[in-house]
Amino acid sequence: MTFERVCVVGAGTIGSLIAGHLAGVSEVSILTRREEHAAALNADGLRILGKSDLLATVTASADPDRLPDFDLAIVATKTTGVEAGIAGLAGRCPDAVVMTVQNGLGSEEVVRRHGGWRIISGVTFISGIRHSDAVIEYELDTETWMGPYAGTATTFAAAQAAGELFAAAGLNAEVLPDLLPAQWSKLIFNAAINGAAALTELPHVALFARRERPTDLGHLVFDLIAEGKAVAAAAGIVLHDDPWEMNELAVRRGESDEGDYAHPPSMLEDVLAHRPTEVDAITGALVREAGRVGVPVPLNTAVYRLIKAKEESWTLPARNIQAPPPSR
Amino acid sequence: MTFERVCVVGAGTIGSLIAGHLAGVSEVSILTRREEHAAALNADGLRILGKSDLLATVTASADPDRLPDFDLAIVATKTTGVEAGIAGLAGRCPDAVVMTVQNGLGSEEVVRRHGGWRIISGVTFISGIRHSDAVIEYELDTETWMGPYAGTATTFAAAQAAGELFAAAGLNAEVLPDLLPAQWSKLIFNAAINGAAALTELPHVALFARRERPTDLGHLVFDLIAEGKAVAAAAGIVLHDDPWEMNELAVRRGESDEGDYAHPPSMLEDVLAHRPTEVDAITGALVREAGRVGVPVPLNTAVYRLIKAKEESWTLPARNIQAPPPSR
Repeated sequence: MTFERVCVVGAGTIGSLIAGHLAGVSEVSILTRREEHAAALNADGLRILGKSDLLATVTASADPDRLPDFDLAIVATKTTGVEAGIAGLAGRCPDAVVMTVQNGLGSEEVVRRHGGWRIISGVTFISGIRHSDAVIEYELDTETWMGPYAGTATTFAAAQAAGELFAAAGLNAEVLPDLLPAQWSKLIFNAAINGAAALTELPHVALFARRERPTDLGHLVFDLIAEGKAVAAAAGIVLHDDPWEMNELAVRRGESDEGDYAHPPSMLEDVLAHRPTEVDAITGALVREAGRVGVPVPLNTAVYRLIKAKEESWTLPARNIQAPPPSR
Repeated sequence: MTFERVCVVGAGTIGSLIAGHLAGVSEVSILTRREEHAAALNADGLRILGKSDLLATVTASADPDRLPDFDLAIVATKTTGVEAGIAGLAGRCPDAVVMTVQNGLGSEEVVRRHGGWRIISGVTFISGIRHSDAVIEYELDTETWMGPYAGTATTFAAAQAAGELFAAAGLNAEVLPDLLPAQWSKLIFNAAINGAAALTELPHVALFARRERPTDLGHLVFDLIAEGKAVAAAAGIVLHDDPWEMNELAVRRGESDEGDYAHPPSMLEDVLAHRPTEVDAITGALVREAGRVGVPVPLNTAVYRLIKAKEESWTLPARNIQAPPPSR
């Protein structure tokens, strides 16, 4: 089984990085949200800088009916965009495989409501910096995990074929027979790291793993993760990776590889841009699962409520906030 | 007992509002941090707008040795400025009374390290908007509570005299025989309201008391306050006011009196100005008292760690944050 025609849904940072790489080994089409974005990609190609150096030829459109058929569709929107993205492909290519790579839980079920495709669950750790519609810097060339989504007719061979496609394109892929343990590892990691980053407005720096002074943030991150692990255990999930070790590894990598560089988690980027965050699909999913299995998660619940309230702050008609006085 | 000469330490919003009013019924001197601030006050007087309309004549200096003697000193700095402020008065006017009005706990002990003055503990709910060094808008004309500080020779009569001075000057004052129950009410209120405001960047809006949807912020505020009340109970404090009722009252007042106005808590103002907050004296004090009496306060501890980490974000050499992309 090979995938020769790939449709990437969503041309944000993640979608662009995947599309730009896969275009080297397959025919890639891209479903964008804005027509001018598609026009830029069609005119100039998609440029990937940083960890890769590529100029990819792609076929892009904001109108899904104008995109060619596909063997593999990769839904690479944020969780908040899955519904609108996959709806455009309803009725198309019923024999294709659809891969999700969103944070949190639940994207596969959204896809399933729109078609009987086989589904591959994905979890990606790659990241990039968007310079313009058609120029993306490949920042963290970390792994993408993928595996057949349980409850569909997806075979392990299909997931292996997708993994081989990623590998041939220069992306790091790991294929797993069951992705749920990996999704949960990233869910618990993301709930803690994205939550703390969104509220402190700190990128993922060493303080996230420091537990020296009583006030150190690492204590809270550790406790948030401990709550998540208790939920996973009660749900019968044996985690693929320990989220606390993922946290320690990520801050060490930041310190050693890049000087004082630290990765801004996506929820922090959303907060700084005053965009709706993915908190409902990440912390919200964890809190809902906790309720289902009857495990208390007071700290994740607190983070959830604070971020929901923070989103409210962007919609206030008047902030009532004075310009700060020059000094006191 | 009457106070004819009052020295106000600190000419921030609270200090200016107190000084501007008291100057109508006593001789007021002001210790400022910056000499140009003192010069502006000496040249133009201190203008109070809003709920009052006053132009006060005061004697100001950044050099405490150039200030006249006083019967009453009111330390009106933030908690972070008490040490430096009162140190300037060390050795001066040993028969005077010193009043503290800081948030949190512990200012009186800082004062006591610098002199044997009688001490009045104060808690103030007034607020204002600083337009310039010499022009302050009186915003919330709420109460100031005051009472003799236990462990000093301060009499109730001294606190009554201070209360009468405030009342004569047009400020709302309540004199209490023991201020600790009132200080704790405001401590618990402030830990919840200032903490949630600092992290969500919301002013004190109705959402702080709303508990309809599971994600509503009011649940968290309620739980933060419940932790604080458990600490107070274990410490043997019978609260003067219920902090949750204070919260409900404050958001109702905001809604009814002022349209969509909502008060920005001081810790939110500090966050927006990237100034060190008073979190150590507010949430930190509550967490330390909780440890002393053995009551777990996981939510207040989480808020404390998040705000300490948020303060760190202002000191990062590079934020590593890109300008937000135009859209996705």
